[in-house]
Amino acid sequence: MKELKDFEEKTIEREEIFDGFVIKVARDTVELPNNLGTAKRELVFHPGGVTVIPITPEGKIVLVKQFRKPLEKVILEIPAGKIEPDEYDDLENAAKRELEEETGYKANTFEKLTEVYLSVGFCDELLRFYVATDLEKVENPRPKDEDEILELYELTYEEAKQAEREGLICDSKTVMALMYWEIWRLQGKMS
Amino acid sequence: MKELKDFEEKTIEREEIFDGFVIKVARDTVELPNNLGTAKRELVFHPGGVTVIPITPEGKIVLVKQFRKPLEKVILEIPAGKIEPDEYDDLENAAKRELEEETGYKANTFEKLTEVYLSVGFCDELLRFYVATDLEKVENPRPKDEDEILELYELTYEEAKQAEREGLICDSKTVMALMYWEIWRLQGKMS
Repeated sequence: MKELKDFEEKTIEREEIFDGFVIKVARDTVELPNNLGTAKRELVFHPGGVTVIPITPEGKIVLVKQFRKPLEKVILEIPAGKIEPDEYDDLENAAKRELEEETGYKANTFEKLTEVYLSVGFCDELLRFYVATDLEKVENPRPKDEDEILELYELTYEEAKQAEREGLICDSKTVMALMYWEIWRLQGKMS
Repeated sequence: MKELKDFEEKTIEREEIFDGFVIKVARDTVELPNNLGTAKRELVFHPGGVTVIPITPEGKIVLVKQFRKPLEKVILEIPAGKIEPDEYDDLENAAKRELEEETGYKANTFEKLTEVYLSVGFCDELLRFYVATDLEKVENPRPKDEDEILELYELTYEEAKQAEREGLICDSKTVMALMYWEIWRLQGKMS
């Protein structure tokens, strides 16, 4: 059985490449363990995010349609957003804010499910998942970001699975949301 | 109902920031639809990857323990790797190569499950999932990359869920693998 020292890659030099509004990019030269020499590691640092699986009283999932520049296409996603600097001490509230801003809903039942690192090979982005049920419309919802152009959809499980087959649902957090929903259906916890 | 033109963000200027061994980084100035003005988009381009959920004849999942520099820690993951330039026309073979290099196993049954974009807000990385069953050890497996330090584990479903609770399993692809496994168990397809 190996110990931490058999794995650990110590940074011997860091080249700061980019300090953006969302991400920071660096390239580290690391010393490999057990005298294996050095290697380069390309790293993206991200503030992390929150995401919400919103299920209406009618048993539909609330999705937002939006353009994603990295893919150059419009896709359907569960509501999500990156964490602002002043939100780290109340992430549930950050998730509630995203839900309200993007969908106009608030949830009477709000529960943390899990948190996952999205792409550990090069990036430290951590995404926290919440499930929001017993939804109701907010009278005057907080406005969304100025440069966010969204369209709302409410889909049954079968409609959402069809959207996934058609490639409209194709990102990890929304595919995970449908997998959670499938597990809850198989467990008899949700229709 | 909005049309594509109501969403599309056209690049009016691209600033190339970094051209690395794995990722490329750019910052685009985009024209927002409907005369909303311009915005900046920070973009990471990634070659994409393949990943394999390997299940042994004893009903255990094969995981690799490795150090992940972006997290500065050792975690347990399903085997995965980025796609090499000459592999795009046979991605199943790329997945079989990763499985053999990282675990020393080959699979007599190999099936594509899905593909997902890991983090669509800033990155185009697409990860293809395969499930490999009816595994057997290769006599002289292909060697792994020189700078990959791995340790192999074979865990039952309960052991893997425990590793997830302890935070040793914490990345999206491996959490998705355990969700698939849970669905197959609930459907009675796997123990």
